[in-house]
Amino acid sequence: MKRFFPVTVFLIVLFGMLLLSCENPSTKEDQNKTSKYFDLSGSGISEVKDVTPIVIKALQECKEKGYTGIKFPKGTYHFYPTYAPDFYTAITNNDNGLKRTAFPLFNFNDFHIDGGGSDFIFHGKMLPFIIEGSSNIKVTDLSIDWEVPFFAQGTVVGNDPDDMTFDVKMETPYLVDDNRIYLTLEREDSPYEQEFGHRYAKQEKYYQRLGQNIIWDRKTKAPLYKHGLYSGFDNSFFFPAKVLNDSVVRLSSKYRMVPPVGSVFISKGEYLSNRECPGFRIFKSKDLLFKNINVYHTGAMGLIAERSMDITLDSFNVVLRKGTKRLVTTNADATHFCNCKGLITIRNCTFENMLDDATNVHGTYARIKKILSDKQIAYETYHPHQKDYLFAAAGDSVRIVDQNTLLGKSEILVIENVERINEKVSILKFNKSIKGIASIYDGIDNVSWHASALIENNTVRNNRARGFLISTSGKVEVRNNFISSQMAGMRISGDLKLWNESGPVDNLVIEKNQFVNNLHGGNKQAIILIDPELNEIVDQRYYHKDILIKNNEFYTFDSPVLSAESVDGLTFESNKVIQTDAYEPIFPDEPNLSIHHCNNVTIKDNTYKLLSGAYTDLSINTN
Amino acid sequence: MKRFFPVTVFLIVLFGMLLLSCENPSTKEDQNKTSKYFDLSGSGISEVKDVTPIVIKALQECKEKGYTGIKFPKGTYHFYPTYAPDFYTAITNNDNGLKRTAFPLFNFNDFHIDGGGSDFIFHGKMLPFIIEGSSNIKVTDLSIDWEVPFFAQGTVVGNDPDDMTFDVKMETPYLVDDNRIYLTLEREDSPYEQEFGHRYAKQEKYYQRLGQNIIWDRKTKAPLYKHGLYSGFDNSFFFPAKVLNDSVVRLSSKYRMVPPVGSVFISKGEYLSNRECPGFRIFKSKDLLFKNINVYHTGAMGLIAERSMDITLDSFNVVLRKGTKRLVTTNADATHFCNCKGLITIRNCTFENMLDDATNVHGTYARIKKILSDKQIAYETYHPHQKDYLFAAAGDSVRIVDQNTLLGKSEILVIENVERINEKVSILKFNKSIKGIASIYDGIDNVSWHASALIENNTVRNNRARGFLISTSGKVEVRNNFISSQMAGMRISGDLKLWNESGPVDNLVIEKNQFVNNLHGGNKQAIILIDPELNEIVDQRYYHKDILIKNNEFYTFDSPVLSAESVDGLTFESNKVIQTDAYEPIFPDEPNLSIHHCNNVTIKDNTYKLLSGAYTDLSINTN
Repeated sequence: MKRFFPVTVFLIVLFGMLLLSCENPSTKEDQNKTSKYFDLSGSGISEVKDVTPIVIKALQECKEKGYTGIKFPKGTYHFYPTYAPDFYTAITNNDNGLKRTAFPLFNFNDFHIDGGGSDFIFHGKMLPFIIEGSSNIKVTDLSIDWEVPFFAQGTVVGNDPDDMTFDVKMETPYLVDDNRIYLTLEREDSPYEQEFGHRYAKQEKYYQRLGQNIIWDRKTKAPLYKHGLYSGFDNSFFFPAKVLNDSVVRLSSKYRMVPPVGSVFISKGEYLSNRECPGFRIFKSKDLLFKNINVYHTGAMGLIAERSMDITLDSFNVVLRKGTKRLVTTNADATHFCNCKGLITIRNCTFENMLDDATNVHGTYARIKKILSDKQIAYETYHPHQKDYLFAAAGDSVRIVDQNTLLGKSEILVIENVERINEKVSILKFNKSIKGIASIYDGIDNVSWHASALIENNTVRNNRARGFLISTSGKVEVRNNFISSQMAGMRISGDLKLWNESGPVDNLVIEKNQFVNNLHGGNKQAIILIDPELNEIVDQRYYHKDILIKNNEFYTFDSPVLSAESVDGLTFESNKVIQTDAYEPIFPDEPNLSIHHCNNVTIKDNTYKLLSGAYTDLSINTN
Repeated sequence: MKRFFPVTVFLIVLFGMLLLSCENPSTKEDQNKTSKYFDLSGSGISEVKDVTPIVIKALQECKEKGYTGIKFPKGTYHFYPTYAPDFYTAITNNDNGLKRTAFPLFNFNDFHIDGGGSDFIFHGKMLPFIIEGSSNIKVTDLSIDWEVPFFAQGTVVGNDPDDMTFDVKMETPYLVDDNRIYLTLEREDSPYEQEFGHRYAKQEKYYQRLGQNIIWDRKTKAPLYKHGLYSGFDNSFFFPAKVLNDSVVRLSSKYRMVPPVGSVFISKGEYLSNRECPGFRIFKSKDLLFKNINVYHTGAMGLIAERSMDITLDSFNVVLRKGTKRLVTTNADATHFCNCKGLITIRNCTFENMLDDATNVHGTYARIKKILSDKQIAYETYHPHQKDYLFAAAGDSVRIVDQNTLLGKSEILVIENVERINEKVSILKFNKSIKGIASIYDGIDNVSWHASALIENNTVRNNRARGFLISTSGKVEVRNNFISSQMAGMRISGDLKLWNESGPVDNLVIEKNQFVNNLHGGNKQAIILIDPELNEIVDQRYYHKDILIKNNEFYTFDSPVLSAESVDGLTFESNKVIQTDAYEPIFPDEPNLSIHHCNNVTIKDNTYKLLSGAYTDLSINTN
């Protein structure tokens, strides 16, 4: 063991004194700051119809005068877009555009928004919170909802299997025109609107054709068992429709069967227009806390964080409002973290009834479009939801990834310069040559921006799609969660296909979770699905690394529990699988565990309790 | 006569010397400058498929190194959007958005783009020229076209009046899907595009549903006589369609009749997506010359100038390419000047086969949305094509206009401050109180930005819609033009309704023009239509002022020649009206001249020669 030399001791003491001398004033300042809340009680906020202008003005004053927070008196507040400032905003995995916001938190530091337990009701197209270039921000004690939702809902009151039609009693605003059904969003009123403006509602996507849809079960409040028989997410299909009476519409189905009477038809609007209004947009920010928040609805994701770090969600719930007849919360994922670093903490949250996943922590591969010189390439981001995606900045470290194997094919390269050409293409300059290494259409993984995550004590239920999606090389712990989604409970993927989601996991612990009756939608997946999308497999090389699945309980009516491919270091240990009769099995002949092209696999001490009470071994397929 | 005093003579001489002493160096500099052209001959531009990157780089170098121009060797050049820079651009009367451009002329001064007689062919969604914040710019000797047009065209090869269907042999790219017909635009290719990207073509508006349509006459190359019977511009109607064979599609019509066999079906895409790609976008610029330019096609207006001054178009032609089978040039107006000042000169141009007007010189009324204080109001621009319209800046003079009479109700107010809230709403601060003067929904006219115009020696023919639209208080002369449009040859309007176009004319001379067989589309208008849209008429107060219509020839198959309302000082003098048999009259019972609520009207020395050769008096209705 090394001994300290006196000079080291001296330096440590000196550093300690410096720290102390710095600390005292800052502590005082913090004390001062904590008392500097802008209290909205006296602002007239409780008397006006539209609180947006008051909040905007208050936030400006907070910034100008150095307030450390803003406090709402408990109440119900309505936010309209009429006088909301707008900003052109490119939001990965959501729809870009000019967004009107009520909380434009650009370049705020050390600031707390205290909702005081209030309900925030939004109207029309708004993006409630934009947090950009900010640090040490807390948002607490409030809820978010919309007066008119971004989805359509109605009860199936009749069907005709021969004609392949079904009749829906609509419960949300809608329009039937041009033999199609549209959902209708709230527009601002004016004499112009009444005389002319409404003519443009379709083009401005306040009427949106219904196509992408899913059938829900009113009793369980979850997507209907095997709803894939009755519904789908085809971007280009729109329901032919006929009005039967004031609230009942007859829709022509193209799916295998018509949905059963009593089930609930739910549809969002047109693709690339149905993710316009997330709840929280976070960009280039750090040290954020969201606590005691209920998101009852948004017109996209609940919270989407991008190129940000150290974010905590504590009791950030995406839930149905008590007593509501709605069966859907967010139009897309409850939460989503892309290109983040530091630690993402998600604890004590409930995520229910979303139209997509509970969370997704990932990066996005850019793809090489053109090799311009030994050190310079043009890259493209392909998916339309990745237009103007901020893939990298100077100083970031990246790695070239083979387009077929998804395996790294370069050492770490440091980016010296990024030049944005347009919303799809940018030019990167590396610090080293990539000559003979990189090929066109290879991926690039930004390894500087892989977050760690701690996901614990959360509940996921009754949503379409999956629970937690993890594709990040930071350490990730998923503990003590209850997960009941209708596709996989967890997915660990990675692809250079449709979404180009990076990257491999490197240390993922899935421990002490309860997975309950996942997979009832009918998709052929597994409760834990590890499926990097590889065109080619390379002997003795693996995409993911070190995944530990231990001490979990899998309550399941079906057979597939784990499907894993291309993992080096996979442990499935001391898990309990408990058969249930919640639904009829859909894939009873599938093995419980499918393990393909994995290395260092440990499967031990698991139990499998059948409905009969008897125990049996888990079936394993390693072909 | 005044005699010069010696001191005046002295001053003049001194001033002359100063002028000369200033002139010499600048002349030298000009001479230097004229030799500093960036010659693209050696750039490899003739060998590459996509010239965009070379042109972008050359323009950057021109700016950095102070070149005064760029020269293209005569050739045919293809511009692709792949590596084109993009800019979020709000363009009045066109569609806003991120625009990829090949000529991003931001803050260029004293610069000449010499096309050398070249053909520029654009691919996909591009905006060829953006000229913003620039001055003394010349663009000469080039043509603009698109490989794949932004409209659909096909010949009607069959029809069924009972079923109300007609069969179209398509001549432009199209798709039939979801029982509708779509035009298809050119998309960039890539493996991603082939596997996934094409799925989003509808949402990204590369497939656009066809609705707005017009029927053309292959023989005359003009819109078909009374095409309103067969077609229309309803924003929300889309043709139900069925594929008959590889190139023939059966469309179901909702119009009064099916179009005749042999006529040509032409349709642009979806409203608010069918004006994305004008040819020239001009903003905040001055002293511009466009000479010897042929615009064969654009996906919006040919040239749209906004908040700019002193612009000359000389032989700026919007014409069908020789030998083309296409019957349409621009998807919207050939040229359009909004919120401009100084002098607009349009001479020696041919504007043919547009889907909208030849030109429109106007302002746009903003409307009062909220009165915030005695000197402050929030205004709104209502039409969706006026989102983010730059209505005014500090220092501009404006006038409040009554929402019902369109008459001024305030003195001139100077704007002290403008604060943009969002793309619809801004806040204006005036130098004087508007207390008791302004009401909500009144208009505001920016009188600082009313251009003068000289429009001479031009030909307008075979387009949908009108010839010249003039709504500006600057002096306007319209001389020696040939105008054969299917609606009014000229329209002088002003409204606080759909488009909110300002303002009144104050000195308009229409002289020595030939108007030839206008109005054959079937709209009830007049060859010269002066129709401010007034809700209320005020005794002895008039909207327009001083319109002189003199020495023109009106060749017309129909009866209405002039319809005028609310003009103080209207002269219709020494005009010749010559009856033709080009078409059957559509409104034979209408008076030749309708004059309503006008003052100081002179109608004299006009002649009306009938088909028979006999002369008769023009009928006049003054009710």
